[in-house]
Amino acid sequence: MALGIVTLTTDFGLRDHYAGVMKGVIASIHPAANVVDICHEARPFCVAQGAFFIAQAYRFFPRGTVHIVVVDPGVGSSRRALLAEAAGQYFVAPDNGVLSQVWEREAHTVRAIDIARHALTPSSNTFHGRDVFAPVGARLSKGDESEGFGSVIEDYVRLEPAGPTCRKPGRWQGRILNIDRFGNLVTSFPAELLRDSPGPIEVAAGKLTTRILRQDYATAAPGQAFVIAGSAGYLELSINQGSAAEAAGADIGDATELTVTQRS
Amino acid sequence: MALGIVTLTTDFGLRDHYAGVMKGVIASIHPAANVVDICHEARPFCVAQGAFFIAQAYRFFPRGTVHIVVVDPGVGSSRRALLAEAAGQYFVAPDNGVLSQVWEREAHTVRAIDIARHALTPSSNTFHGRDVFAPVGARLSKGDESEGFGSVIEDYVRLEPAGPTCRKPGRWQGRILNIDRFGNLVTSFPAELLRDSPGPIEVAAGKLTTRILRQDYATAAPGQAFVIAGSAGYLELSINQGSAAEAAGADIGDATELTVTQRS
Amino acid sequence: MALGIVTLTTDFGLRDHYAGVMKGVIASIHPAANVVDICHEARPFCVAQGAFFIAQAYRFFPRGTVHIVVVDPGVGSSRRALLAEAAGQYFVAPDNGVLSQVWEREAHTVRAIDIARHALTPSSNTFHGRDVFAPVGARLSKGDESEGFGSVIEDYVRLEPAGPTCRKPGRWQGRILNIDRFGNLVTSFPAELLRDSPGPIEVAAGKLTTRILRQDYATAAPGQAFVIAGSAGYLELSINQGSAAEAAGADIGDATELTVTQRS
Repeated sequence: MALGIVTLTTDFGLRDHYAGVMKGVIASIHPAANVVDICHEARPFCVAQGAFFIAQAYRFFPRGTVHIVVVDPGVGSSRRALLAEAAGQYFVAPDNGVLSQVWEREAHTVRAIDIARHALTPSSNTFHGRDVFAPVGARLSKGDESEGFGSVIEDYVRLEPAGPTCRKPGRWQGRILNIDRFGNLVTSFPAELLRDSPGPIEVAAGKLTTRILRQDYATAAPGQAFVIAGSAGYLELSINQGSAAEAAGADIGDATELTVTQRS
Repeated sequence: MALGIVTLTTDFGLRDHYAGVMKGVIASIHPAANVVDICHEARPFCVAQGAFFIAQAYRFFPRGTVHIVVVDPGVGSSRRALLAEAAGQYFVAPDNGVLSQVWEREAHTVRAIDIARHALTPSSNTFHGRDVFAPVGARLSKGDESEGFGSVIEDYVRLEPAGPTCRKPGRWQGRILNIDRFGNLVTSFPAELLRDSPGPIEVAAGKLTTRILRQDYATAAPGQAFVIAGSAGYLELSINQGSAAEAAGADIGDATELTVTQRS
Repeated sequence: MALGIVTLTTDFGLRDHYAGVMKGVIASIHPAANVVDICHEARPFCVAQGAFFIAQAYRFFPRGTVHIVVVDPGVGSSRRALLAEAAGQYFVAPDNGVLSQVWEREAHTVRAIDIARHALTPSSNTFHGRDVFAPVGARLSKGDESEGFGSVIEDYVRLEPAGPTCRKPGRWQGRILNIDRFGNLVTSFPAELLRDSPGPIEVAAGKLTTRILRQDYATAAPGQAFVIAGSAGYLELSINQGSAAEAAGADIGDATELTVTQRS
């Protein structure tokens, strides 16, 4: 089943050697593994952003891929380590909800990894990316069976779904799932809302409210805020050549509102 | 002809999952592809810098390499997508001139990719790196023939050459091709000018002018501005332990001047 | 002996194409090489940080790995280029002490690379990562014998060991080996000191002094400074959700003190 591809999604950053060390551990266990960086610059300790990144990325990888996701504010505490299977792929991550958006999309099985048995020896309290997640991911990529890593559990941590939820007819509440390099605000409103809406819509986040819709970034006037169906499959609030996040004063996890004005 | 090596040069940055998603698309189409990052931190939308990066890098890759270059301010507009062949390598990029410096150096053939036929389904308006360029690059790296992707065209976009052009005897004008991490200004004056010059030379960019020449960074006094034959094959303006770009107040694309004083 | 894995540790940064060009050189010589980034964001010209990164990373890679380490303030001067063997692995680096911490840990043989014979042609004065270290590393990864690259030498540059050294009974002096992304100060005091200490300990760096010990980051109060046995095998000074480096006003290479209070 395993294919030899191992992806890494972490908040370790690229200023240090941490991601490189994980690759050493993987190469020592499975020299033929093909290690792929998804992102190492998740905001430190921001589980919600890690959850968004891996949910966006896994769908484009082939069956048999092993994803290692380490955004792990609780490292060294008693939080568990998980091995999940979904969509024919494997996910190795701390038990803090970072896989929630994958689970919202896919049927899944989750195991609690027997850390004492599968960690490197010696093992640290502060770098489970190296000592727990990398070795387990490497062994999976080599063909080891999930069953050997721990028992199936049901009580793993799930983040509260970001919605959207209907507040009253024509009014929806969602959340900001991500802010990207360009300051675009990715909301949790599905992009299909644009197409299926019975009337004009308005999207609001923090101090920013707009009814302007655009099909692409290039056709918006500089400085103009607009709504766009983003590549992640959600509505995004953007400002051409500017930062919607800054204009809105909003952050990942903050509430967003979508209002549909019924044509009368 | 294809070798399985696929390089990526983008302005997507490393703070997000975008580059990682492109690697997923490539792995899904060609799991054995060897994906190599050239740079993901090109200045956002700066086609001139992307053009410099790929022109500097391709020469060191083997024949059969596939280069995917995505600095793409016009994504979602009607700009075309190109597949170029030059130096026995393949280049997949938007039609905005980002391959201009490769074309200045090499005989080349350019095709307009039939996007409707070769993009992922569904496809976004805002992430052609994932939906168009990655799948085409992956298929090329697997051995698909260029002919299948679209017809040869001649009217692709070319950036104005950066020179140098001779203004009057002993006076040349060029442009700043790049500013690197250290604030070095890479001019478009070929490094051979230093060797072949009939007399002392002076190089100027913005507020910075110098006649001091150095063979390496280590022998310049701290804070001293100097001209050096850089590794890119061009003259560079540098300041030891300082930023020439800041001292000059100059940016990529700005004019530079080179004056040769004839020994009398 | 060689395995095909080639790692890169540099201060070239990721904003430019430099690391990507090195990968092109390697791919041209050895297309099947598996190139692994350890870190490209070492502080520019900071040999001490490069020395820490490679010493932390190599231990997790398999025998036969080739490590290319380029933190090279003296590039273009007459400093030599080295090929070292230690722990069944290969290390290619400038002769400036960047391998010192590897040599402190492992029996080793060091050769001076015959640059004139093994550099790319043409070769630059300013980018030996591309022109010297990448081609030598690639050939080693392909199976070329070390003997062919130059003669064994003994007078290579070694950095002064960071200690710790005993000042008087119960008082040790060390140095700051690294400051990571989170502002943690990695000292040169071995983590075992915590376990083996006959009494309470106090660690000081710059303006920061603390006797508080923690087993993990999660259990410390926000803003509280503490000592922790870090994953690098050394004591670290940390502040939960804050920067110990900033609070201490201390930098890589600065002195640190450890005092053991004897229980009376």
